Amino acid sequence: MFSEIAKRVKDFSKKNPGVKIMRLGIGDTTRPLSPTIIKGLKKGVQKLSDVKTYTGYGNAQGDIKLRMALADFYKKRNIDLDLGEIFINDGAKTDSANIQSIFGPDNIIAVADPVYTVYRDSNIIAGRNIIYMPCNEANGFIPSLPNEKADIIYLCSPNNPTGAVATQKQLKAFVDYALKNKAVIIFDAAYAEYILDPTLPKSIYEIEGAKKCAIEINSFSKWSGFTGVRLGWTVVPMDLIVEDAKKGEINALWYRRQSTMFNGASNISVEGGLAALSIVGQKESKKLIAYYMNNSKLIQQSLIQLGFKVFGGEHAPYIWAKIPTGLNSWEFFDKLLNEAQVVVTPGSGFGREGEGYIRLSAFAETQEVKKALESIKKNLKL
Amino acid sequence: MFSEIAKRVKDFSKKNPGVKIMRLGIGDTTRPLSPTIIKGLKKGVQKLSDVKTYTGYGNAQGDIKLRMALADFYKKRNIDLDLGEIFINDGAKTDSANIQSIFGPDNIIAVADPVYTVYRDSNIIAGRNIIYMPCNEANGFIPSLPNEKADIIYLCSPNNPTGAVATQKQLKAFVDYALKNKAVIIFDAAYAEYILDPTLPKSIYEIEGAKKCAIEINSFSKWSGFTGVRLGWTVVPMDLIVEDAKKGEINALWYRRQSTMFNGASNISVEGGLAALSIVGQKESKKLIAYYMNNSKLIQQSLIQLGFKVFGGEHAPYIWAKIPTGLNSWEFFDKLLNEAQVVVTPGSGFGREGEGYIRLSAFAETQEVKKALESIKKNLKL
Repeated sequence: MFSEIAKRVKDFSKKNPGVKIMRLGIGDTTRPLSPTIIKGLKKGVQKLSDVKTYTGYGNAQGDIKLRMALADFYKKRNIDLDLGEIFINDGAKTDSANIQSIFGPDNIIAVADPVYTVYRDSNIIAGRNIIYMPCNEANGFIPSLPNEKADIIYLCSPNNPTGAVATQKQLKAFVDYALKNKAVIIFDAAYAEYILDPTLPKSIYEIEGAKKCAIEINSFSKWSGFTGVRLGWTVVPMDLIVEDAKKGEINALWYRRQSTMFNGASNISVEGGLAALSIVGQKESKKLIAYYMNNSKLIQQSLIQLGFKVFGGEHAPYIWAKIPTGLNSWEFFDKLLNEAQVVVTPGSGFGREGEGYIRLSAFAETQEVKKALESIKKNLKL
Repeated sequence: MFSEIAKRVKDFSKKNPGVKIMRLGIGDTTRPLSPTIIKGLKKGVQKLSDVKTYTGYGNAQGDIKLRMALADFYKKRNIDLDLGEIFINDGAKTDSANIQSIFGPDNIIAVADPVYTVYRDSNIIAGRNIIYMPCNEANGFIPSLPNEKADIIYLCSPNNPTGAVATQKQLKAFVDYALKNKAVIIFDAAYAEYILDPTLPKSIYEIEGAKKCAIEINSFSKWSGFTGVRLGWTVVPMDLIVEDAKKGEINALWYRRQSTMFNGASNISVEGGLAALSIVGQKESKKLIAYYMNNSKLIQQSLIQLGFKVFGGEHAPYIWAKIPTGLNSWEFFDKLLNEAQVVVTPGSGFGREGEGYIRLSAFAETQEVKKALESIKKNLKL
């Protein structure tokens, strides 16, 4: 999808040389890193300049200090994790794509529709059968439990692309399903820090029993601006039991996979992660989140004014907007590009249920968001 | 193997508290990064602190500037590469492990014995049949062509663990075999910069016809000290044709794999890589190589004095030593640890043909190497 977007934007630019294009499409951060994180990263570089502090390959499961800081991070939400349950990665995408590799090829996969395409594509490449859990206005874009038996269920809350957030009750239904059906949940919490309502779960482990059935993947990308720095983590609980696997076996399998096929995140990025998890670092990240969430509000307000029905955007940096005309996602994408020079993401690119929707990203500079919204208001012929 | 080494060292330390252990085992760099690289990395961090220079996700195939610098790097060896043929990775290990995933499960794999275990283990996990190409004193530790038809052949020159280097003629035999048998060569050139003899090939593409049959994987780890920084590259030529795949198809498959399952190296590391490839950066890396190669000489000299038969170490940072007693690799490992408190790598851990050998790594501080060698001379009862 993103290559098709790039192609259409390129074609437009060729036909309209010099015309400025405004982007509300990709979920890529634009704000500079916070002072504390910059300090941490610089420290990371500095350490490599001196033989006394130089480090090469790290611990196979990831830096111990960073895992301790993450354990503290979870502890504050009353979640106890052993250091052996936390694996440092180079961002959520790689683990989201690779986690399936430790499970058998015959497992039935359940993913939401629309969906972050990596869950789906990595399993298609592995040749697995996929069940789609439709997300639409009727269910508030939170998937219902699969009707058939699924073995591996991918959940993402706050959701990319719809911006929907699952409640405690909704997640509990999935945990109960997983425990009953001996299924495993792959929970992508990359947008968790965008949750502003304290009653909404930021981690699957806030749900009782989740440690027995869920793997959680997270990242520093979206809340600390690490999209280019590359750092995240995955939790594989010791208590996780899947089908006939014993306690600790899935954890050991992932350990084996990672130590065989991965060589750790950059030790510079690790220092940045430690800084992001410090008290000051977390405060600064809250400001970053507030900045993008202000963009989200501006986008929502403008779209509502224009007669769009909008979803998400409250506890997530994505706004899922229903196209008010009879156009499909790609037709409306073209219309927005041609009339207002604004790039969004066509909902149908995330799955069949996304047809008739567009995703707008709050990851942009506010002045650019304002320009884009003004151009839409002024130029889009609805 | 490395976890078994760690276990034995831990047990020894428990029984002998306070006794210092000297390490000539792991191929992990110990020298600080050169001033030019540090400057590059700091620039990379600084760029992320300002909205004008901040970058998030990079190009799906890797930073264009870095790919241009790498194309220049190859150009100096009279190898022409398109930018579309170069993929930036986060170090050679991940790509060495993942490259097999774009090929069918029925392909027959040929690996050297002894071998860098990642080639073997990633294919075992994928369920493929493996042919071993024995490397021993008789063939100078350069594998002979497989007797059966192999579809994918892994070669590593200079070699880890034996330190052997293939000549033009030896590599040509493999390229001819691959072209004739429609096989693909996965060439790991991570130690290429340790080649000091200009007549020895540093890249598989110095061999005529190699672009039609070979993928090359490389890394900044060993020659620029990036083991912790994480940066490397893989070349998948457009001309590569495997079985019924058309021109460009393998390249497109790898592009699809990487854009689906990987999200790029750290943009800070990329700036470090650019610095490493600058003229000054390359000069500094040559000093780094000379430092480790001096260690290699010291190790070779001491072992020869002690009556060991040693191999490798001339154009590679690894010395492959034949155990002069009747002990096997692990027995001699224990003997060295107990008598001299020196940790090496047991040859049998790299494969059956490694039995009766140990690998010594030149990646250490010279003073530590000297201490280890003195302890061996003084304490080892041969």
